[in-house]
Amino acid sequence: MAPVTLTARVDELAAEVEPVDGEAAAAARARHDRLAKPPGSLGALESLGARLAAVAGACPPPVPARPAVVVAAGDHGVHAQGVSPWPQAITRTMAGVICDGRASVNAIAAAVGAQVSVLDVGIAGAAVDHPRARRARVRDGTADLSVGPAMTRDEAARALLAGAGIAEELSAAGVDLFVPGDMGIGNTTAGACLVAAFTGVDPASVTGPGAGAAGAALARKREIVAEAVGRHRPDPADPLGTLAALGGLEHAALAGVILSAAADRRPVVLDGLAACAAALAAVALCPAATGYLVAGHRSTEPAAGAALDHLGLDPLLDLDLRLGEGTGGLLAVPLVVAAARVLGEVATIEQVLEA
Amino acid sequence: MAPVTLTARVDELAAEVEPVDGEAAAAARARHDRLAKPPGSLGALESLGARLAAVAGACPPPVPARPAVVVAAGDHGVHAQGVSPWPQAITRTMAGVICDGRASVNAIAAAVGAQVSVLDVGIAGAAVDHPRARRARVRDGTADLSVGPAMTRDEAARALLAGAGIAEELSAAGVDLFVPGDMGIGNTTAGACLVAAFTGVDPASVTGPGAGAAGAALARKREIVAEAVGRHRPDPADPLGTLAALGGLEHAALAGVILSAAADRRPVVLDGLAACAAALAAVALCPAATGYLVAGHRSTEPAAGAALDHLGLDPLLDLDLRLGEGTGGLLAVPLVVAAARVLGEVATIEQVLEA
Repeated sequence: MAPVTLTARVDELAAEVEPVDGEAAAAARARHDRLAKPPGSLGALESLGARLAAVAGACPPPVPARPAVVVAAGDHGVHAQGVSPWPQAITRTMAGVICDGRASVNAIAAAVGAQVSVLDVGIAGAAVDHPRARRARVRDGTADLSVGPAMTRDEAARALLAGAGIAEELSAAGVDLFVPGDMGIGNTTAGACLVAAFTGVDPASVTGPGAGAAGAALARKREIVAEAVGRHRPDPADPLGTLAALGGLEHAALAGVILSAAADRRPVVLDGLAACAAALAAVALCPAATGYLVAGHRSTEPAAGAALDHLGLDPLLDLDLRLGEGTGGLLAVPLVVAAARVLGEVATIEQVLEA
Repeated sequence: MAPVTLTARVDELAAEVEPVDGEAAAAARARHDRLAKPPGSLGALESLGARLAAVAGACPPPVPARPAVVVAAGDHGVHAQGVSPWPQAITRTMAGVICDGRASVNAIAAAVGAQVSVLDVGIAGAAVDHPRARRARVRDGTADLSVGPAMTRDEAARALLAGAGIAEELSAAGVDLFVPGDMGIGNTTAGACLVAAFTGVDPASVTGPGAGAAGAALARKREIVAEAVGRHRPDPADPLGTLAALGGLEHAALAGVILSAAADRRPVVLDGLAACAAALAAVALCPAATGYLVAGHRSTEPAAGAALDHLGLDPLLDLDLRLGEGTGGLLAVPLVVAAARVLGEVATIEQVLEA
């Protein structure tokens, strides 16, 4: 018997995702019109409730009780081209700070009652040595996408399966809502490449400052993105090939988190560019995964907005965040909880008038 | 010795509000630039953190641990003019549903960890008979503002002091963040009048559908608001007189909640039109109260947006809500908690590099 290839395992995962339940969504919309309030008066919370019902296949949908952010961390060979003002070592440093519970993502996760998992999927140098970091190293950072493919197809598949593995483990432990988070100096360069590849938008126009590229450095970053997309000519119908050519290890891992969460019928609340780029890859692998996505926040990075438009998602928040780590997605978690509670707990007009 | 008049007690309350602390806000902004993240990358959460520091007079600001929504409920004589498609009795019914914990505000309060208090400040008919309703009835609903003043100046003062009283009691019990909420069929008519009076914007153009006025009913509502503002010619420099002429009992009560919260240096997260109109009255009584306000949500009611513009506040959320009850303000509470936690818990770049 031939061994199951990594690519085949990715395809199997994608095949596990069932379409969301349109009937449950319709039931949620109908229920909203019967609740003790003017119809439509809860605005975006009503459509969000319908989406949660579709995800769960039930109306009212379950109230998320154990949200988790999965921060996938990796380094980027393209950093050598000066695309970021920050040293590459910051990826490792910040991964440690997150493990220590002292980064922005930790404070915001605590505010919304979410747990934080850190996945070292390829930080440059030795493995992160921290009891709270999960090691799933695929390679020692990616290769420089401006001179060749960032990684091999098998490496992209391994990173994706690593993300799926941790999400599966968390789901089994009761996690019922996922926020994909990221840490990787240089990853907005790879992210912009992926968004351009998957959506067909102009690469230079969606490339933003990331963590602080400005002036000549930003102009150079735009050139690099445009040249890389032009040289690799990625086929968006080949998501693993596109991830391998232009992506980061954390993008691949987060695509796996998204597919695994969708396969387990958990909602996924998207953060900024890294999560949105990963979502494009996940949806390219499995269009049915779109139904499990909630856009948490509109990042100021233009590529993130282009990705959300392509996915047909309207973000809940628009707070000018551009940090990543999962912060924008986490801030939207209480809205998801509220949308579910409204459908499950508010009396209907009929019940009120009977009383 | 002459008895202290109600008006004098309102003035005393307004005089208790101290200006917010600009130095603490500056310290928060400076601290944000030293945290382990790109400067400015948390967007609106950073300015919110500075505001919380100014409110508390401390950087980092305390993390709100006991948020509360105060739902002030009252009826409106102008209901007789057909300004709402809902029967007046719905105010009483919904006040009971909120006391029973089965309204939208309860589900959303539970989602964000807030407690709910209901204040009957003048529901038409007998006092609400529910152990969880606080009685502070000033009169049996307001008079019809389209034919005369909605109430006397002393009644406006009594409603305001009732709101202040409950807020003071809650503060003493540990409540450290306030969301003003409302229930009152017809109150968007009074609310639009107040916004026009306090801001000078065109009355008809800020009058919206409220809980569902449409077509000819909406046109009539606009006429009533414009005529009432024109007839009463309220002086915005006389906030109690303006509340008495055009307001609702719940608007006056919420102005009292806001002033009392500000006097106790608690942040106030504004919801929709009723809360915004009350904030205009509070700020007219005491300009220093502005510094304690956070705009939670941009209601689809145009008068709410006009009020926020006048107050110089940029709302955190824009989710197309138009329900009131405090729902939009409550949904922003986790953002306030997150902003405070970030300032208190995230490591500085210095600390990270030393480690």
